[in-house]
Amino acid sequence: MENINLIKKEGYAIVQMNRGKVNAINRQMVLELQKTFESLALDSDTKGVILTGQPNYFSAGLDLIELFQYDKEEITEFFSAFGSLYLQLVQFKKPFISAITGHSPAGGTVLAVTSDNRYMAQGEKYVIGLNEVAVNIQISQNLTEIYAFWMGDGLSSRYILEGKLLNGGEALAAGLVDELVPLENVLDRAEKKMRHYLKADQEILLNTKAKLRKHLWDKLDLDAENSLREASELWWKPEIRAKMKAYVESFSSKKKS
Amino acid sequence: MENINLIKKEGYAIVQMNRGKVNAINRQMVLELQKTFESLALDSDTKGVILTGQPNYFSAGLDLIELFQYDKEEITEFFSAFGSLYLQLVQFKKPFISAITGHSPAGGTVLAVTSDNRYMAQGEKYVIGLNEVAVNIQISQNLTEIYAFWMGDGLSSRYILEGKLLNGGEALAAGLVDELVPLENVLDRAEKKMRHYLKADQEILLNTKAKLRKHLWDKLDLDAENSLREASELWWKPEIRAKMKAYVESFSSKKKS
Amino acid sequence: MENINLIKKEGYAIVQMNRGKVNAINRQMVLELQKTFESLALDSDTKGVILTGQPNYFSAGLDLIELFQYDKEEITEFFSAFGSLYLQLVQFKKPFISAITGHSPAGGTVLAVTSDNRYMAQGEKYVIGLNEVAVNIQISQNLTEIYAFWMGDGLSSRYILEGKLLNGGEALAAGLVDELVPLENVLDRAEKKMRHYLKADQEILLNTKAKLRKHLWDKLDLDAENSLREASELWWKPEIRAKMKAYVESFSSKKKS
Repeated sequence: MENINLIKKEGYAIVQMNRGKVNAINRQMVLELQKTFESLALDSDTKGVILTGQPNYFSAGLDLIELFQYDKEEITEFFSAFGSLYLQLVQFKKPFISAITGHSPAGGTVLAVTSDNRYMAQGEKYVIGLNEVAVNIQISQNLTEIYAFWMGDGLSSRYILEGKLLNGGEALAAGLVDELVPLENVLDRAEKKMRHYLKADQEILLNTKAKLRKHLWDKLDLDAENSLREASELWWKPEIRAKMKAYVESFSSKKKS
Repeated sequence: MENINLIKKEGYAIVQMNRGKVNAINRQMVLELQKTFESLALDSDTKGVILTGQPNYFSAGLDLIELFQYDKEEITEFFSAFGSLYLQLVQFKKPFISAITGHSPAGGTVLAVTSDNRYMAQGEKYVIGLNEVAVNIQISQNLTEIYAFWMGDGLSSRYILEGKLLNGGEALAAGLVDELVPLENVLDRAEKKMRHYLKADQEILLNTKAKLRKHLWDKLDLDAENSLREASELWWKPEIRAKMKAYVESFSSKKKS
Repeated sequence: MENINLIKKEGYAIVQMNRGKVNAINRQMVLELQKTFESLALDSDTKGVILTGQPNYFSAGLDLIELFQYDKEEITEFFSAFGSLYLQLVQFKKPFISAITGHSPAGGTVLAVTSDNRYMAQGEKYVIGLNEVAVNIQISQNLTEIYAFWMGDGLSSRYILEGKLLNGGEALAAGLVDELVPLENVLDRAEKKMRHYLKADQEILLNTKAKLRKHLWDKLDLDAENSLREASELWWKPEIRAKMKAYVESFSSKKKS
């Protein structure tokens, strides 16, 4: 794996995203996450999984600079793969915790919200949230379901429609994260919770998780390509393409300077 | 329009209810709101709508003094029209914001909860809430859905069953309003939010609103007459009629003194 | 009734559980609660019901010491009866309030969450919560529904998966209880609320409660035996049986010392 460090612990695994400083999500990262979670789902020694990132960045979200270069087929494939990864994670049957080591906007949030618990690094600068509306990406119905699951329909609607990025305090108040902890303790906190889960009868624990997510799962459109068709199509809308171009160029020039 | 001022702004419209000091809702007001929103839904220059009232009163709710005079046919027609207006507003596809300039109990709340955002005037005296149980009016299933949407099933159930009117602080804590702002700034705050919405790609924004309300819309009984049949029937229950008479008389005598 | 004091007041009834100091729930208690609520449902003089316990204990939950002695048939019968009692209470049509006079974990919570309001005794030591995962009992889908009803999917999921017991402050913040009041005032507070309900038109009040619970009721599996089949089966899993034995023995020896 190029972009993933897999650390096996007694009874659980830590999946650390490891793609540059900001863990931007491209096709390769999506494929590696899919394979990793597939194999962990089948590994009977792995009772649970923690997903984490790099200091200051859990994940900056989709790698828009790379995605901007994709042709139509590649974009369709990418969104389909990313929608499929989302479905895989949100339906992951074992305990699953996100150790959010910093920024986690947009695509970073997509990964984090699928897990059962979220521990986020303290610090006003770190943000999390489904800000698709603000960056001209069409959110899928599937993704709105889990946001409403964690924070209720009201807050979820208001924040998604606004395209809002939340700081830690707002995310905690909204129920989007469980706790704020110092950056250096985020992973420890997640591991402590995982060890708590491992003490339970695992058959009861997995049954219980399935019950808690039953209605959420019933709502999902399991055809990933279909669920993100609008997103792939609107990606090519000329006005949106122009805005994306301006964004990518401003970002590329910032990187050079 | 007798009871409505329509103000067109760059990209959006402000609908100001304008029926006396308290904006009590009668048949005429309902018909004018229906027509206004119908025409704004079709107007391509109008990307969003703000609904507002008079200083101190967004709307005092149904005009019970006038309604008390209606005969059976008129009441049935009124409730059907009001239920129909509710369905129209809750399904309004463009961004829609309530600038709540003061009191907004009962029927005033019915209008306000249909919108995407609610900015309410600060001040302990202003109240909002579905207090139908306290005033002997049968709430519809349709109306319970949106209350639960904004504040969750638990609070919604407790408050509706109690017939509770909330002050601003309670409404904010419950998620029933987004922010409390000084009365003189309520409309400005709503307009600022509307301009934020106008910056988004409008196709993505409208798609997104539809996704956020999908399950809410799926739950609605679209036959307005049916959804308020119980309300029209219980209106004539002798004990309730007697209470309403006492209420109307006390109110009329207060008005004279 | 051995384990229940029934007190009739003007317009409502108080059901006081009365089985030792801690109101542990055994077969006999379940049967008496079923009969009592059946008869109160039919009694036209009873417009509402308050359920309460003993000072310091609303109910300590299932009587695991007695249940540990049950054979397979008895356990199946017990869980079926308890599941049936839950369905009866959660579908009780009249106003129903819990006056939580102290501890109310696990099975105590099952009873309390079915009611429309919960007033809980102040005091850090008192706990409430569905901690089934922590005590190796399989929660039913039916029971997860009402927890999510009161506190939303997010908190409900996190707390049930953790097996968390909440103190009063946590329960209040989560929306699991309505108010914390001094122990000596818990019943008074519940009675005051009941008298408030009695002032409403009872036809409107009952219609309204039915609307508020419609979607909850639609989700329930009304076959009580089926809904708790997993719980009866996992009860006999050897690892769980061993843990239960250790627990019962430690508890029995504590009782003797």
